[in-house]
Amino acid sequence: MSKTGYPNFKGSFFNLKTDSPILLAPMGHQTQFHRDGEIETCKGATKSNIISSFGTQSRMSLSDIRKNNKKAKLVWTIFPFGDLRWIKNQIKDAEKNNVLAIALCLDANVRSCRYKDLESFYDARKIGRRSNPISPNPEKSYFYDWSLIKNLSKFTKLPIILKGILTSEDAIRGIENGAKGLWISNHGGRMFNSGYSTSYALYDIKKKLKKHKILTIVDGGIEKGTDIIKYLCLGSDLVAIGRPAIYGLNLNGSLGVSKIFEILKNELKTAMINGGFNNLKSFNQDRLLLGKFKNQYGI
Amino acid sequence: MSKTGYPNFKGSFFNLKTDSPILLAPMGHQTQFHRDGEIETCKGATKSNIISSFGTQSRMSLSDIRKNNKKAKLVWTIFPFGDLRWIKNQIKDAEKNNVLAIALCLDANVRSCRYKDLESFYDARKIGRRSNPISPNPEKSYFYDWSLIKNLSKFTKLPIILKGILTSEDAIRGIENGAKGLWISNHGGRMFNSGYSTSYALYDIKKKLKKHKILTIVDGGIEKGTDIIKYLCLGSDLVAIGRPAIYGLNLNGSLGVSKIFEILKNELKTAMINGGFNNLKSFNQDRLLLGKFKNQYGI
Amino acid sequence: MSKTGYPNFKGSFFNLKTDSPILLAPMGHQTQFHRDGEIETCKGATKSNIISSFGTQSRMSLSDIRKNNKKAKLVWTIFPFGDLRWIKNQIKDAEKNNVLAIALCLDANVRSCRYKDLESFYDARKIGRRSNPISPNPEKSYFYDWSLIKNLSKFTKLPIILKGILTSEDAIRGIENGAKGLWISNHGGRMFNSGYSTSYALYDIKKKLKKHKILTIVDGGIEKGTDIIKYLCLGSDLVAIGRPAIYGLNLNGSLGVSKIFEILKNELKTAMINGGFNNLKSFNQDRLLLGKFKNQYGI
Amino acid sequence: MSKTGYPNFKGSFFNLKTDSPILLAPMGHQTQFHRDGEIETCKGATKSNIISSFGTQSRMSLSDIRKNNKKAKLVWTIFPFGDLRWIKNQIKDAEKNNVLAIALCLDANVRSCRYKDLESFYDARKIGRRSNPISPNPEKSYFYDWSLIKNLSKFTKLPIILKGILTSEDAIRGIENGAKGLWISNHGGRMFNSGYSTSYALYDIKKKLKKHKILTIVDGGIEKGTDIIKYLCLGSDLVAIGRPAIYGLNLNGSLGVSKIFEILKNELKTAMINGGFNNLKSFNQDRLLLGKFKNQYGI
Repeated sequence: MSKTGYPNFKGSFFNLKTDSPILLAPMGHQTQFHRDGEIETCKGATKSNIISSFGTQSRMSLSDIRKNNKKAKLVWTIFPFGDLRWIKNQIKDAEKNNVLAIALCLDANVRSCRYKDLESFYDARKIGRRSNPISPNPEKSYFYDWSLIKNLSKFTKLPIILKGILTSEDAIRGIENGAKGLWISNHGGRMFNSGYSTSYALYDIKKKLKKHKILTIVDGGIEKGTDIIKYLCLGSDLVAIGRPAIYGLNLNGSLGVSKIFEILKNELKTAMINGGFNNLKSFNQDRLLLGKFKNQYGI
Repeated sequence: MSKTGYPNFKGSFFNLKTDSPILLAPMGHQTQFHRDGEIETCKGATKSNIISSFGTQSRMSLSDIRKNNKKAKLVWTIFPFGDLRWIKNQIKDAEKNNVLAIALCLDANVRSCRYKDLESFYDARKIGRRSNPISPNPEKSYFYDWSLIKNLSKFTKLPIILKGILTSEDAIRGIENGAKGLWISNHGGRMFNSGYSTSYALYDIKKKLKKHKILTIVDGGIEKGTDIIKYLCLGSDLVAIGRPAIYGLNLNGSLGVSKIFEILKNELKTAMINGGFNNLKSFNQDRLLLGKFKNQYGI
Repeated sequence: MSKTGYPNFKGSFFNLKTDSPILLAPMGHQTQFHRDGEIETCKGATKSNIISSFGTQSRMSLSDIRKNNKKAKLVWTIFPFGDLRWIKNQIKDAEKNNVLAIALCLDANVRSCRYKDLESFYDARKIGRRSNPISPNPEKSYFYDWSLIKNLSKFTKLPIILKGILTSEDAIRGIENGAKGLWISNHGGRMFNSGYSTSYALYDIKKKLKKHKILTIVDGGIEKGTDIIKYLCLGSDLVAIGRPAIYGLNLNGSLGVSKIFEILKNELKTAMINGGFNNLKSFNQDRLLLGKFKNQYGI
Repeated sequence: MSKTGYPNFKGSFFNLKTDSPILLAPMGHQTQFHRDGEIETCKGATKSNIISSFGTQSRMSLSDIRKNNKKAKLVWTIFPFGDLRWIKNQIKDAEKNNVLAIALCLDANVRSCRYKDLESFYDARKIGRRSNPISPNPEKSYFYDWSLIKNLSKFTKLPIILKGILTSEDAIRGIENGAKGLWISNHGGRMFNSGYSTSYALYDIKKKLKKHKILTIVDGGIEKGTDIIKYLCLGSDLVAIGRPAIYGLNLNGSLGVSKIFEILKNELKTAMINGGFNNLKSFNQDRLLLGKFKNQYGI
């Protein structure tokens, strides 16, 4: 029996006060779903007061997104698909457009083999318009190491979030080299088959980095309020939502995107009341039965 | 090899002697299934000498149910969807109608998100007649804490059963505040997705409350005699049956309800003979192979 | 790498030398599948030199079976569905008909609830002819205890096998009271829902009765050669085959029954050669990976 | 974050330097899929610089395969289906045809029972032409023991690989008797039902033979790049591919076979870049989450 009252959703994203633990994940090539792609998605997220992430795989340029969403809270995600100068120019452009943080995507250096796409002749790159230029050289990404993080974290005052972290070793190395946030992600499971689940990675990283208070985001298959609760109980500060937002975009543009976030917020609220959680700090691992999970991973 | 003779089903519900470990669970809005709803269900349960639970979500008022079922053994279930005065009036009314106990439902403070219902435009509240008034204010329930139990247990001499208990912490707090019974339930799994199973909760509570002799009821998915046996072996005194009784009601009114209880009693008897149990005290955890169960929950 | 040569199948059933670890399990009401029912099944088993079990649920009387199968190696299975005098008369009749052993069926005292049979109006008892009389009083079985075994084992020189043993406690009590064989069975899983598997029971009994050399038979779902190997590795001396033999009977009478046994013998031989087993003594638990099995049962 | 650069695939097969950890597994009766059967398969593998295995169950003789594939890197696989003289003649013929190694197949001494083949009247032996003679006497294989390995390893300077090894006991005995390679295989799971998986066997053998540096090959269900990575992480030096190569052969002869190997190489490369592996030495068990695997096998 828990007196939840009306649940409280207050939290923070670096210095910004937030009223939801939900973030929009960056997804590329959104003009294939809606003429204005990322511009429209941003409009929907902003309507629901959700921080939205876009990046170098976006079809609409950051300045186009910003021009049309003056009040948006933005994260810019850089895939290291070019030389250092190109990456730094991306950061400068993000600073100019007043983003909250830079995310550096580390887990998708090469296109994975997807035979269904080959069979259906599907190629996202050929559908929809583009105002954001194609990254110059993906293979450059094979050759970067931790010194890149060190270099960039000195280059900008924006907090740098490492996206695609799955091991505590990488988390620690990242922090040592200046990262201010960890984004635990396996790129939707679409890049490295049979890789770690983000729930395992989150559990493992939180266990090994107990003392660190570093901002943590997680993504991967979140579809309903109790999915969010599980990730928050495992120790994440925020969760990122991808695919559902695109469904919203496809069906009804920015209104669809916003509707998705309202549904998720309502599910979260409802589940918090019935589950007896009164604010974001009331989530912790004691509320989870982790037996099967631990057996599965041998932990 | 066990000499079972004809199995003995003697037990008790507080001071009442019983001849079955089966209880009718409270279910709301029964006039959608039969014109006389709860009145008819009660008739069926009473015909089979089964204690029947109804409550503030019932469509037929307690006095209507009682008027038509003079010999019924009743439990009245209160959802705390109003202020303290309203709750106390419910108890006074229950006392007047000579119920055996009050159940307080703690696990369903807000309607959960059910998209299939939205898609089918199904709303139980709009189907069938009503003589029991709608509860005044569900949101009141968000603000109660353990002092409610303390308050009510002093207010009435009826034993108070806490319904929706899933953790030993809540069980202990409940007992400390005057509860006389624990009803382990997750509201049919329909309120908090991914919540605890009642079999886990029962196991855990029995382990942690070994010394307490508090009356324990459990529900959740009981469909046949061996389901009952499993819950009794885990340590429950009684089991509550919901959905199957409604099937009976729908098909053949009180005769259908009674038939369901006769089927369950016969299955229980048959399984006891072949399984070598001669009375309700012969059930215990040693008869269960709990390996998979324990691995699942990490216990 | 194992030099198997041609595998050797020599074993024994009490004093009888056998050339196969396979037994025919007792099944009732066989005239529903073939006019001559048990007589014909016995003919098929005998053709393949397989010991065959029949019993008080048989449709054809023991003397009819014997009259038509002079060289058959027989076990007579008694369900204790009558008073002591009736049981002793069954044993006397079995002695007269020169059976190898008596099996006493302890796990099927009451007909279990089977709704599919009710729906299809299927009742084995109404199909096919009968020369073996119906047992006088099944409810008598509820009242026997271990003294029955003691009594009968003094009454006859035939070895008594307890059929339906699932726990080491029962196995030990049985041996103490004079039983000479253990038949680990859950009656095909059709009597007590959610009961122990026979593989678990066999494992548990063999572990707890290490020193005892008592003859052990097991049944339950055996369909192919490697099923037999698994039970033998778990420690059984023989396995009993039921359902497949009936399929054979139904399709082609005694020739069908015999064909089934030849198929199973060939599968056993083939699997022994490729698995590197050269005789029945080469089976042991070291050849099994029991991890999942042990986790499942918490052992 | 791992600087993979362009992954390096250098390895070795005894004294030969290799540029892929992939091997073609031996499969019999290939003329049923293509007129030139093994000759054509070898041509495809050779085009992709893949070592290819054929053997005594091949339809085309070794000299035919060699004549048409002068530069092929070959392994000759002998099923011990004849007397010692016949086996030694096979080895002499292999030496003459300049093979890299002899594989001795130990796990398929008798044809297993396959009812689908019986039902469809499928018999590989009756389809397609043959220039390699049928082995004289499969039953001879039942009678060989470890002395065969000792004898043959003295008879030839070619390294002898034992194919079909599934236990550390056999691995050790094999090495003691002169084997220079272990091929962990369960013959595609088609010979001994319910046998060990090759992943378990590989894990177990590597654990128990830590000090031995013996060349290890594994096969079993490899269909994509990450399957290869898993086996290499478990400790194998090479993996053998069977079925996919036959699909390639069937669809487009040697070009199809080569295409299959190019697909697998590309998947391996892609997965290595995204998984952060830069060469074949970067694979090890620390990259695997073995919890479920270990629970399954009780290790």
